[in-house]
Amino acid sequence: MSKLALVALGGNALLRGDQLGTIEEQEKNTTDTLENLVHLIKDGYNLVITHGNGPQVGNILMRNDAGESMYSIAQMPLDICVADSQGGIGYMIERMMHNVLRKHGINREIVTLVTEVVVEKNDPAFKNPEKRIGKIYDRQKAEMLEKEKGWVFKEEVKSDGGWRRVVPSPKPIRIMNEKLIRILANEGHIVIAAGGGGVPVYIDKKNRVRPVEAVIDKDLASSLLASRIGANEFYILTDVSYVYINYKKENQEIKEFLDRKDTLKYLNEGMFSKGSMAPKIRASLFFIENGGEKSVITEAKKLEDKSYGTKITMEY
Amino acid sequence: MSKLALVALGGNALLRGDQLGTIEEQEKNTTDTLENLVHLIKDGYNLVITHGNGPQVGNILMRNDAGESMYSIAQMPLDICVADSQGGIGYMIERMMHNVLRKHGINREIVTLVTEVVVEKNDPAFKNPEKRIGKIYDRQKAEMLEKEKGWVFKEEVKSDGGWRRVVPSPKPIRIMNEKLIRILANEGHIVIAAGGGGVPVYIDKKNRVRPVEAVIDKDLASSLLASRIGANEFYILTDVSYVYINYKKENQEIKEFLDRKDTLKYLNEGMFSKGSMAPKIRASLFFIENGGEKSVITEAKKLEDKSYGTKITMEY
Repeated sequence: MSKLALVALGGNALLRGDQLGTIEEQEKNTTDTLENLVHLIKDGYNLVITHGNGPQVGNILMRNDAGESMYSIAQMPLDICVADSQGGIGYMIERMMHNVLRKHGINREIVTLVTEVVVEKNDPAFKNPEKRIGKIYDRQKAEMLEKEKGWVFKEEVKSDGGWRRVVPSPKPIRIMNEKLIRILANEGHIVIAAGGGGVPVYIDKKNRVRPVEAVIDKDLASSLLASRIGANEFYILTDVSYVYINYKKENQEIKEFLDRKDTLKYLNEGMFSKGSMAPKIRASLFFIENGGEKSVITEAKKLEDKSYGTKITMEY
Repeated sequence: MSKLALVALGGNALLRGDQLGTIEEQEKNTTDTLENLVHLIKDGYNLVITHGNGPQVGNILMRNDAGESMYSIAQMPLDICVADSQGGIGYMIERMMHNVLRKHGINREIVTLVTEVVVEKNDPAFKNPEKRIGKIYDRQKAEMLEKEKGWVFKEEVKSDGGWRRVVPSPKPIRIMNEKLIRILANEGHIVIAAGGGGVPVYIDKKNRVRPVEAVIDKDLASSLLASRIGANEFYILTDVSYVYINYKKENQEIKEFLDRKDTLKYLNEGMFSKGSMAPKIRASLFFIENGGEKSVITEAKKLEDKSYGTKITMEY
């Protein structure tokens, strides 16, 4: 049987922060990124692709705000916005992947699944919402929205100030359709799933699936999916070629190979930035601790040269 | 092997025109509709569900307009908006279906696919765009958008006037992932696909998949999918229990059974309204002319009683 890789595309792989967010930019970035996945396919890997949705769902939330202000269109809750973003981004990746594969004379079916991801209703994250989403409001409007919609706000620490909605980021515990994703991928289909960390839901006491207003970390959801489908390798594509310790300090050091023990040590020492590298490291650790052979953190454009990137394994 | 049915949910099955469009309304309507599909499942049918997206994609387009006006957020093209709506609506149907099935003690996997639908670039519809979408503008703003974005506008005929964007409604010729949908459905999974008639694309001379600014009729796309996956029966759920001839006239008559010959005759006589019943009739004819056993046009709430609804077959 072919080896199975799960590749998690970071926000930057689709849309960079310094860009306007037009569809042309997104299509160009996506194509450039996907070109690099062809190396894996040519090496005989089966492939599952997950992706971030930060800039896109941010725009969807802002459009919901604007649509309500200008045209009194009911705002959709966060779960629907995430699902919307899975549709739009998933379709874009699917179409671009199709074109990249045709260019290389490769004929593989590509299928995009809308994916719910289950969290625990009593996850401690619900007591301490920290993920900042959507528009920055002034205090008055924020207080109004708090009353009207029950949203929770935190003050922005950046120079401009203002108030921003925060939502919890609970731990993913199960991926809906994980068995099907496993089967489809092992049959050689390229599966796009669990976009934006998945649509967050929980199971209530009556065994019903219920929505939650939350954002699931996309690297953690990807790692859980990678492990559940028995992926051999887990790639996290981001904007650095390697994991560093003492990043941006004088004694900065590239780590090309990391075993579990050292990775845990550096993580506990606070070597990895809270909002960006630490979740990737935790996701990598989860993967290798749950049967995965190797987790790789690198840039998309480095996938051709296998020697690039940080490889995290149980033992080095 | 179990019989396979494809059920196309009309816009009303999810959100009625007289409603505000809140998520609570949509969830309630969807649950009520899906309760009726349980009868088919209990009768041993395998099931593919397609759905309209009129009110939802309308709202997404309006939010895109508002987001650009208020916050200068780049508008997404129509293909992305349709894909967004497939994500949001597909997720909602999937979650509600899960809960309805659990209530009835039925354990079936439900899977939602983002679906591209291929049209011909030289479809005559591109020369005569007729499908009205999005916001109604005044003449000045419409002229500006025509220049800026290349949109085409037609004047509204209703009392309030104004100008509305029109897009072509080309004929669907192929459904992406149709083989997979067939396999998944015949394995007993409930597949949600081809929402809103599918994301419209065409294949260019270099064999690339390219987007088009168009809306594909959801009944025609559903009918094509039903035929390609070898469905035995094709249900179009709408807001009338039967097909009528001389509808709303003194000699109005319910047609409970229609064969191909009579259906064609009534269609050619203009018995069915252009924007609503005629496409459903054409979709039904396509299905039975391409191997389908029976097409049923009725209300969702009538599915329990098999004697309800108009049954269209080759021979009566």
